[in-house]
Amino acid sequence: MTTMLLGDLRESVLDANLELQRQGLVLYTFGNASGIDRARGLVAIKPSGVPYDSLTVANLVIVDLQGNIVEGALNPSSDVATHLLLYREFPWIGGVAHTHSDFATSWAQAGVAIPCYGTTHADYFRGDVPITSSLSNEEIQTAYELNTGKAIVARFRDLDPIATPGVLVAGHGPFTWGKSAVDAAHNAVVLEYVARLAFRSRLINPAGSEVSAALQRQHYERKHGPNATYGQR
Amino acid sequence: MTTMLLGDLRESVLDANLELQRQGLVLYTFGNASGIDRARGLVAIKPSGVPYDSLTVANLVIVDLQGNIVEGALNPSSDVATHLLLYREFPWIGGVAHTHSDFATSWAQAGVAIPCYGTTHADYFRGDVPITSSLSNEEIQTAYELNTGKAIVARFRDLDPIATPGVLVAGHGPFTWGKSAVDAAHNAVVLEYVARLAFRSRLINPAGSEVSAALQRQHYERKHGPNATYGQR
Amino acid sequence: MTTMLLGDLRESVLDANLELQRQGLVLYTFGNASGIDRARGLVAIKPSGVPYDSLTVANLVIVDLQGNIVEGALNPSSDVATHLLLYREFPWIGGVAHTHSDFATSWAQAGVAIPCYGTTHADYFRGDVPITSSLSNEEIQTAYELNTGKAIVARFRDLDPIATPGVLVAGHGPFTWGKSAVDAAHNAVVLEYVARLAFRSRLINPAGSEVSAALQRQHYERKHGPNATYGQR
Amino acid sequence: MTTMLLGDLRESVLDANLELQRQGLVLYTFGNASGIDRARGLVAIKPSGVPYDSLTVANLVIVDLQGNIVEGALNPSSDVATHLLLYREFPWIGGVAHTHSDFATSWAQAGVAIPCYGTTHADYFRGDVPITSSLSNEEIQTAYELNTGKAIVARFRDLDPIATPGVLVAGHGPFTWGKSAVDAAHNAVVLEYVARLAFRSRLINPAGSEVSAALQRQHYERKHGPNATYGQR
Repeated sequence: MTTMLLGDLRESVLDANLELQRQGLVLYTFGNASGIDRARGLVAIKPSGVPYDSLTVANLVIVDLQGNIVEGALNPSSDVATHLLLYREFPWIGGVAHTHSDFATSWAQAGVAIPCYGTTHADYFRGDVPITSSLSNEEIQTAYELNTGKAIVARFRDLDPIATPGVLVAGHGPFTWGKSAVDAAHNAVVLEYVARLAFRSRLINPAGSEVSAALQRQHYERKHGPNATYGQR
Repeated sequence: MTTMLLGDLRESVLDANLELQRQGLVLYTFGNASGIDRARGLVAIKPSGVPYDSLTVANLVIVDLQGNIVEGALNPSSDVATHLLLYREFPWIGGVAHTHSDFATSWAQAGVAIPCYGTTHADYFRGDVPITSSLSNEEIQTAYELNTGKAIVARFRDLDPIATPGVLVAGHGPFTWGKSAVDAAHNAVVLEYVARLAFRSRLINPAGSEVSAALQRQHYERKHGPNATYGQR
Repeated sequence: MTTMLLGDLRESVLDANLELQRQGLVLYTFGNASGIDRARGLVAIKPSGVPYDSLTVANLVIVDLQGNIVEGALNPSSDVATHLLLYREFPWIGGVAHTHSDFATSWAQAGVAIPCYGTTHADYFRGDVPITSSLSNEEIQTAYELNTGKAIVARFRDLDPIATPGVLVAGHGPFTWGKSAVDAAHNAVVLEYVARLAFRSRLINPAGSEVSAALQRQHYERKHGPNATYGQR
Repeated sequence: MTTMLLGDLRESVLDANLELQRQGLVLYTFGNASGIDRARGLVAIKPSGVPYDSLTVANLVIVDLQGNIVEGALNPSSDVATHLLLYREFPWIGGVAHTHSDFATSWAQAGVAIPCYGTTHADYFRGDVPITSSLSNEEIQTAYELNTGKAIVARFRDLDPIATPGVLVAGHGPFTWGKSAVDAAHNAVVLEYVARLAFRSRLINPAGSEVSAALQRQHYERKHGPNATYGQR
């Protein structure tokens, strides 16, 4: 494998995909994570339909930002066009993850954004976890995966994708992103956790409300702001 | 075991039964999977009341399509008559699985077909996952297992069992089928997953609606149509 | 341990207690199973407050039917008086299990009997899984555990404890019984499963109904009647 | 490590933190447990943002009751000010645990105290598990973690923190305490279990009521009163 492109990126993307499996977010071959080398404009992504136990750094697929296969014997994930649009439109992101994880997908299927009911949510996502519009029949029948990406981008027209690193695609499931493939997978895990808690909070108290804007800001900035106090710095 | 009939079929049927256990779809001895050798007209099926950990290729039971034991020291699954009717009526199927998996059985017990709330459902099942009528007292008291099969077949009078490879038997639980025993078990796993998500989607938004016909068609054909793009081909 | 009484009974009671733990029905030291030697009138039961991982045949406690310790250095389960009343009042039973398993206890806490929504329920329990009346303040303040047993017996005045081998104690949790300690534990596992499915069926369709009396009878007798066809006989 | 302070306390605090992980109460680096040496006035607490698998007795942080680091190369948990206030205000407690465990946090997010629906609850918590008031914007923006502790203390003005060893912080999650760090973690595990059962009891019967005061008292005193009969004494 001495001639293989992008060894470090491949390691990170492999690790991100395996984290989805370790955390119970994927069934069989469902789901996929990718990462980008911005300097070269190349993306490493899970091959389509391959079980997680069979993934290796070598069978990941390298594509350019237009979707041409640059290295790899297998087809890339069928969702590759969605990933690539996100890389083109959100230039600061380094990784993307897509799962059909149980609770986040249930919210996506219900057509409901996830309200910010608590501080764990606020630690990771500013405001609710938004949901896209449904695609039109035309958008579904032609360039479906690309149009899925466009629906995400449209939803973020007035949102900051840095502060809200994930979205629910209506009737489909969640996409998350981050500084790297591993960070995107981490956000997918937390999104599933947040979705699970929100599901239960809503059933306990259907009239429950979101936490205050001050509390949302406090928790987000405790972890992410310039004066972050969480962790070791 | 050199004289044992149908070694390959037995391997596949054993693997299918063990997959039901590995994926958490069965408790104790509940559930069963079978497969058919169409050329010989013989079916291999789990013996009745035997724990999954004790299953071997050798203690599976071989029956003909009329239910006569051709090879095997044990009784076949008590549901064998249902399996056999499905093989006789759906000539293209190669395997059948029956479980009492948690969420699919809960929908069956609730008497409600599973709506197509999302794309994972659409990847595997066209339209909703249908539910049979309840059996009459006469159908229950005489040839109950055969009549269970007849209720399934009746429900599919206007449905395509290839495009919808599973059903809920009202008040009882799911049956799935496929090209092979392993494929039938795979569909049982996905049905349970789909049932779990639909349960949660319904609780989040009782007024939620199914995804559009265009989206259902798009996802089903991405995996199954003549121009399928999923996986490696 | 060569002089230890009731070696076989101890083995069965140990196995029953460990099955409660293996199947996830108990947390920390909660729950207990016992078995009786009818010829000698002696009961083996879990000691109080001992973790399951520390249980051995030797630290089980042997008591007579009046609750006197016959062998054992530890105190018996604090629920021993309930077990003993069941042995005295239901002379055919050989074992009793008590857990605070998640779903069965949730029904007990909700004060609602578990309706027979499906065939798995019918395979094990005729009719609903009944719930006791709440105890009066006097019954709670004096001989509480004995009165818990009396509430169970009172609830079965018009029920057959052979056909319905379990009950919910209102506000507390389930008791199950059977031919042996292992059988009682098995029924506790199935009751938890039945309670879990019923919970979900009820949420999917709050207006759902029980399966027909004919279907309940058919499934119960397929497993338990004189013409049982389930398993190997 | 021969010069390390408070070796026994460190062992207990490490064990308490690992119990949170073993019992599935924490995700990634979320949550924290601490313990106090009352004679020296020193507290050992989990470092901030460190994964549970990397915890050792050596990387725990020792702080005094004003929050000054006495020993340790890492920052203490970001919630340290809440822990310290509880130690200062509840002089009899020896340990504190904080998690974002699924069901307890869902009740906290829903803004609803957990009613005493059953005897397992009553075994550990007198009355409901209370919930704090929401913090004001001022309380959030200045000394947030200290004010979280003050909200807890305010909620216990008319409650006995010995009899009710835990609380829900509205919109955030549970804090529990006990005689030691290990005891606090044990109470966190039981609180999660109680919250899970209460969630399901409420969905089965939204009109359900708490168990009688007599039953609450009976169970609490069976485990904790001067005449306790539970366990080995």
